Parts: sequence; C-alpha cells; structure tokens
Amino acid sequence: MSSVQLKDYIQEKADLIAERLARYMDTDGIPETLRQAMRYSLLAGGKRLRPVLVLATLEAFGNPIATGVPVGCAVEMIHTYSLIHDDLPAMDNDDFRRGKPTNHKVYGEAMAILAGDALLTQAFETVCEAEAAGAPAVSVLKIVRELASYAGARGMVGGQCADMEGENTQLTLAQLKYIHQHKTADLLVFCVRAGAILANADERQLALLTRYANNIGLAFQIQDDILDVTGDFAKIGKPVGSDEQRHKSTYPSLIGMEESRELLHQLVAEANQALTEAELVNDSILRALAAFIIERDY
Amino acid sequence: MSSVQLKDYIQEKADLIAERLARYMDTDGIPETLRQAMRYSLLAGGKRLRPVLVLATLEAFGNPIATGVPVGCAVEMIHTYSLIHDDLPAMDNDDFRRGKPTNHKVYGEAMAILAGDALLTQAFETVCEAEAAGAPAVSVLKIVRELASYAGARGMVGGQCADMEGENTQLTLAQLKYIHQHKTADLLVFCVRAGAILANADERQLALLTRYANNIGLAFQIQDDILDVTGDFAKIGKPVGSDEQRHKSTYPSLIGMEESRELLHQLVAEANQALTEAELVNDSILRALAAFIIERDY
Repeated sequence: MSSVQLKDYIQEKADLIAERLARYMDTDGIPETLRQAMRYSLLAGGKRLRPVLVLATLEAFGNPIATGVPVGCAVEMIHTYSLIHDDLPAMDNDDFRRGKPTNHKVYGEAMAILAGDALLTQAFETVCEAEAAGAPAVSVLKIVRELASYAGARGMVGGQCADMEGENTQLTLAQLKYIHQHKTADLLVFCVRAGAILANADERQLALLTRYANNIGLAFQIQDDILDVTGDFAKIGKPVGSDEQRHKSTYPSLIGMEESRELLHQLVAEANQALTEAELVNDSILRALAAFIIERDY
Repeated sequence: MSSVQLKDYIQEKADLIAERLARYMDTDGIPETLRQAMRYSLLAGGKRLRPVLVLATLEAFGNPIATGVPVGCAVEMIHTYSLIHDDLPAMDNDDFRRGKPTNHKVYGEAMAILAGDALLTQAFETVCEAEAAGAPAVSVLKIVRELASYAGARGMVGGQCADMEGENTQLTLAQLKYIHQHKTADLLVFCVRAGAILANADERQLALLTRYANNIGLAFQIQDDILDVTGDFAKIGKPVGSDEQRHKSTYPSLIGMEESRELLHQLVAEANQALTEAELVNDSILRALAAFIIERDY
C-alpha cells in the first residue's frame, strides 16, 4: 500500500469516526455548557489514529468493521479526556492543542475537569455498543476490562503520573521508556488487541499483535519527541521546542537524534516481523501504518 | 429490623467492602505516589452506603452477595473519585473531607486529578469481576452500561456541572431537584438497579426498585442539606454551615426546615410503597435503609 493510499484510508476512517462522535455529542440530557465543552475537544480534529488501528486490525483479519466503530469512538473519548486533563494548569499548563486554545482556556478549569471526567465515563458506555453492533457479550466485556486496564493506573494514567514526577529531573532511558510505554503505547496496544478480540483472534495471534502494537507505540512517541525538535507549529499544532523548554527528557536528548532515528527503524522492523508471524488475511494496512508513524511530520 | 440491627448490618458489609477495596489497592504495577493517593481517599472510611445498597438489594431477592461485592467496590471507587475532584481548588476548594485533609491538600492538585481519573477508570475494571464471581456476561455488560450512564454526563457529572453553575444564584425548586437527582440520587439508583439485575429481577420489579431508589436518593440529599445546618462537625466530618456560607440553595433555604422534614417522610413512604408492590423475598433491610437515611446524624 502506497503512502497516498494509506492517507486516503486514514482520512476515510477518520471521517467515519468523526461523524459518529459528532452524533454521540448531539444529544439531550446533558447540561449545555458541559456538552459544548466535551464536544469542543472531541471534535477538534486529530488523526484519529487510535480508532483507525481498531478498524485496520479488524480488516487485517478479513472482518467487517461495524463492531469496531463504537470501540474506536470510545478510545478517542479516552484519548481526548487525557489531553484535556494533561493541559490543565495543575498539570502541563498548556494554552494550545491542535492549534486551538485548550479546553480550560475556553471553558474554565472546573468545566474542563468535568468534561474530561464525562468523556472518560462515556467511553465505557460507548464501548458497550459493540454488542448491539453484533459482538458477543463475552468479547465486549473482555474489551471493557482491557480498556480500563490499559487506560488506568497500571496503564495510561500511571504513565502520565511517572511523566509528571519525572519533569525537571534527568531520567534514565529505562524510566523514559516506562513513561512512553504507558503514557502512549498502552492505548495503542489496547486498540490493536480490541480489534483482534472482535475478530476472534487466537491467543498466539493476540500475543503477536500486542508485540506489533508495543513496537509502533514506542516508535510513535519517539517520533513525537523528534517532531518536538524538528517539527512545524502549523503542522503539529503546538509550539516547537516545548519539551526542551520544560527540561523534559526525550529520546533525542538521551541518545541523540541519529540513534533515535535508527531505533525507530528497528522498532518498525520488529513490528513487521510480528505481523509476518501472525499470518493475517491481509496485513498491508497495518504495515503501512507502522511506516506512516515514523514518517509523519504531524 | 431495628436500627441497632441495621447498624450492625451496615457495619458488617462496610467492613467486607473496605477489606476488599484495600486488597485492590495493595497491588504492583502502579507508581507508588499514585497508589498512595488513590488509597488515601478510597480507604478514608465513610458509610459505604452505596455498596451496602447493592448487597441489600441482592439479599432482598434471596440471592447470595458474591456477585455484588465487585460491583459495590466499583461504585465506591466512582463515589470516591467524584469527591476528590469536587474538592479541588477549581471546584469546591475544600480542605477537609471526612475529618481528614482533602486529597489535593496531601498530594497536590496534579496527583489528585490523576488519582481521581485512575479510580474512575479502575471502577470499570472492577465491575467486570462480577463475571468471575458468577454473573452472566450479558448482565455484567448491562451493569457496565448503566454505571457509565448514571455516573456520566447525563448522570452524576451532569449534576455536578449544574450544581457548580448554580452556585451564587437563587435556584428554583425544580433546578435544585435536578441537581440532587443527578449529583446524588443517580448513583444510588444505579446501586439498587445493579443488585436487581444481578438477582435477575423482571422489568416490573426493576422499575419499582428504581422508584424506591429515586425516592431514597432525593431524601438522602435533603437530609444532607439539613445536616449542613444542624449537624455536628465531629460526626459529619466537614464544617457545619458551609452551604449557607457559599450561598448555595438547599431544601431548607428554599422551602424551610419544617417542610423539608415533612418531605423526607413523604419520600420514604413512597419508597416503601414501591417496595411493597415489588413483592420481594425479604425487603426488611431495604425498608430499614430508607428509614436510616432520614434519621442519620452523619
């Protein structure tokens, strides 16, 4: 699959997810300011890479994507809540996200906290809709459990905590890897595993796809570190050089730019090796996504 | 059931839940500060009224309580996260809760936000354990969906938002009822419904128990309003008169103390009527809980 074809694929799926997310937000029974605050960040664009991973994994098994759409929307709600809370004054204190003022800049701190809480909670209601879309209750329940696990204290929130505690200190590579693993990779691992569970993958395939996702997840975050040095505000939607300004340890700061780039290619090679061993019906999109992650400039 | 017997019942169940919650918090894989912050608020005591409602409903149907224990723990995690976030400087800015310094006073704002996020997320992992305890996946999934719905933007978070927006303004009784319904009653309704779902209640019983829970939920919050005027710091664990100081509308401020007390008795009578119609195996504990809610002094 060419990178042009992949971009079309991502765009098509991102549009589908955005349309569905907008429908989830166009609803009665929520206080209007809260609904607006949730909607503002959830529909602020973004690559929708996480939902795309869910859908691409289903397709790699030759499955239809219907059951993956609510799961993808749920993970996008989780991702969005984590950005809203990360940006708060008590946390990273960021004013811009995806080129727009952050949630608390528009709606105030209290509402931003509540909007994050509400999106996190709604994710678990949304994921349950996979059952109505045709997935067995046992599979959906397994996905609920994994979403909570990968997004929680042992996963994404734990990574965010370690990240915060590590600011203004010189981290070891092992500490930085822990942060990247949990803060970023865990949710990507969830996406691939959820797609595989919906596709009735066996345990061996599930383990191999977890390896694939761990590798691209770490690569994704290293590429983020690199873009923070070399990127373009207009493309990445936030100030360049903010990691350095905050004295944050990054892969380029710890092992240098050249070695970081080399590591990226190793990680993608390992991801592709896992795909080969998993013997899927058609792994071309998953391969193209791995390549895209390290080639992207936004 | 006498009020002494009920207190013993509540104590016994509260101890069981506290012991199980402590086990959930005694675990590897969570950054230590985060684990301590979660543990601090989750094990700070409290009546554990919500889990007790889950277990008492199961018993009212003549069922064993095993499947209700993880559900009760989950709802206590949700309740605790909501208190941590409510107490934040950007929200109610409270320094004390249950007679102890609030979470952010001990661990800082950023960690308090993360501890709340982590508890909210872990609730959904915990509720899934009802399946391992013997509940069918279909029932557990229904409970996951209801937990997210009653705790989210249409439920508890929505109530919290309306409460915040209503501060320093004179509310109508309808607005105050909306806040009490969602901020407080919704989670109690969830507890009773979850117990009933685990006990395989039919739709008619589920509707009647929802009516029971809505009535005691509203009564619970009105009693809270009353205790804020007449209570004792040592017993309620927070300063007396804080609602008035914040110019918050309450039932006593809107309809007077006498009428508030009368309304309490009406609500309990309606709750009991719903129980009678539900024709349960043994509703004595649920009746005693309704009476306890309006008689309590803490």
